[in-house]
Amino acid sequence: MANISADSGVIRGEIEFPVYYEDTDLSGFVYHSNYLKYFERAREHVIGIRFLKELFDQGVHFVVSKAVLEYKAPAQHGDQVLVISEGQYSRSPAIPFEQNAYRVDQDGKRRLLVSGQITIVALNAQNRPIRMPDVIIEGFQRQSSPAAGSKPTTDEESPPW
Amino acid sequence: MANISADSGVIRGEIEFPVYYEDTDLSGFVYHSNYLKYFERAREHVIGIRFLKELFDQGVHFVVSKAVLEYKAPAQHGDQVLVISEGQYSRSPAIPFEQNAYRVDQDGKRRLLVSGQITIVALNAQNRPIRMPDVIIEGFQRQSSPAAGSKPTTDEESPPW
Amino acid sequence: MANISADSGVIRGEIEFPVYYEDTDLSGFVYHSNYLKYFERAREHVIGIRFLKELFDQGVHFVVSKAVLEYKAPAQHGDQVLVISEGQYSRSPAIPFEQNAYRVDQDGKRRLLVSGQITIVALNAQNRPIRMPDVIIEGFQRQSSPAAGSKPTTDEESPPW
Amino acid sequence: MANISADSGVIRGEIEFPVYYEDTDLSGFVYHSNYLKYFERAREHVIGIRFLKELFDQGVHFVVSKAVLEYKAPAQHGDQVLVISEGQYSRSPAIPFEQNAYRVDQDGKRRLLVSGQITIVALNAQNRPIRMPDVIIEGFQRQSSPAAGSKPTTDEESPPW
Repeated sequence: MANISADSGVIRGEIEFPVYYEDTDLSGFVYHSNYLKYFERAREHVIGIRFLKELFDQGVHFVVSKAVLEYKAPAQHGDQVLVISEGQYSRSPAIPFEQNAYRVDQDGKRRLLVSGQITIVALNAQNRPIRMPDVIIEGFQRQSSPAAGSKPTTDEESPPW
Repeated sequence: MANISADSGVIRGEIEFPVYYEDTDLSGFVYHSNYLKYFERAREHVIGIRFLKELFDQGVHFVVSKAVLEYKAPAQHGDQVLVISEGQYSRSPAIPFEQNAYRVDQDGKRRLLVSGQITIVALNAQNRPIRMPDVIIEGFQRQSSPAAGSKPTTDEESPPW
Repeated sequence: MANISADSGVIRGEIEFPVYYEDTDLSGFVYHSNYLKYFERAREHVIGIRFLKELFDQGVHFVVSKAVLEYKAPAQHGDQVLVISEGQYSRSPAIPFEQNAYRVDQDGKRRLLVSGQITIVALNAQNRPIRMPDVIIEGFQRQSSPAAGSKPTTDEESPPW
Repeated sequence: MANISADSGVIRGEIEFPVYYEDTDLSGFVYHSNYLKYFERAREHVIGIRFLKELFDQGVHFVVSKAVLEYKAPAQHGDQVLVISEGQYSRSPAIPFEQNAYRVDQDGKRRLLVSGQITIVALNAQNRPIRMPDVIIEGFQRQSSPAAGSKPTTDEESPPW
């Protein structure tokens, strides 16, 4: 089904959620480290939490190896946040992600809050980086394939758990 | 529209969300303090984040005065969590909430994870407890009124932001 | 050395730390769920992090089974927080702790912030409650013994890691 | 006392703390976003929490504008973490910090966990970047002056609250 001959590609997705009281600090805005949580949540939706758990049971997991965050504008309690994520997978153990968090106003306008480049690395059970295994390449191809339909490959649309 | 003559009642709601990686600790389960976050998120949805912000601008906010949590079963990464909340409002500054967090399995079965009794108190801008003002009673009545329709009064169904 | 004939007793300890920016929310005060973290930190110091890790390697760990928190006064960024903890151990799997968080002013005055009753339960590797094993009773006795010296049995005084 | 003619310089400091249970995730290691908290704690100690609060009352505060984190090795529950921080201040609103988190073993050996470049920016009460005011330059000079003694300018040594 999946065409493993092309062993690199792109996975994409977006999620939206409100800023809760728990996310803020005394400045009244979202605490800066929470964007790393937001970006991870977003990657979990792009990759699929169930798929991540299956991989974990097979001895493969991901860790963050590098993060670059640029803070452009602050978000407040009650703001609606949209995170758009795009990751480039290949046979390399590393998957670099471009991730942007936007505030979405009620009229639909978007304002960039934080842009991030987050690199995750596939490790085996001994915490060693591994050449990306077929099971992941194929999983990603299923997600990114046009044959999967025209709808966005986010968990919001098709939750995998 | 709202009948202020009856100045007590019940507000209810439920929300569902997955357990993210960020929610876990080294035991592999949700870190115990996160249920206080989950319950607050749930109350924010029941009361409405936008309404909370309007109240804040009018000098009224809520704080937690007491929390009782009983941990019944643990939740794991990827579990779907359902929080059902019910608060009893009156002219007293305090609103006691009954809140229960459940794991929802794919077949729809529920297992109780944590039961909580969380009391919040309305304060004025000087952080003093206040007799519950009309604006809140009326706001809650609009939510809990049968005239508001038969659908559940959760933000999942009708997000207020 | 340890007198296992008396198989119940009390463990006590105290720790102090400042409120960091990360601990606050938009109210300007410490976010309410963080007191569960503060109380756990305090218990880790009372029991000893190294001892907890040794127990873990032997298949014994603790989980929180119940928490009761009463919020008396708020703490701000930069406040110095003192947590005093006292736990009653016995052969029962459960250890009920009384824990109080105080703000300590520069003149040494204390103000109660939050009082808590936190019960932890000893579990085996299969997550089943267990009758408290000798290794824990003896470890606690060494800590609480007057023979251990007159200095407070906190990790601040004698860090175990 | 402070020589304002030299209006740039370096502030340095280090703090140490254990990894608590609350800091870990299901991998068994410190959750990756917590290093942003660790680095902020460290900057709060370098700059001084009391000084930060005085500045806040004068309408000046700092926000993080950029963060670059490279994850070199993981830290576990109970590990002792040392953060060494060095910031370059000038009349520019931005202060770039080099911050490194190390694991410190019982024999004193250090292993680099995470290296970070964190830039903070001074804002006025309207959240606009400002040319670094005298009060901050002078405060930093007092800290970094050799006249202040040869001991490290950390809050561990001379807590400012």
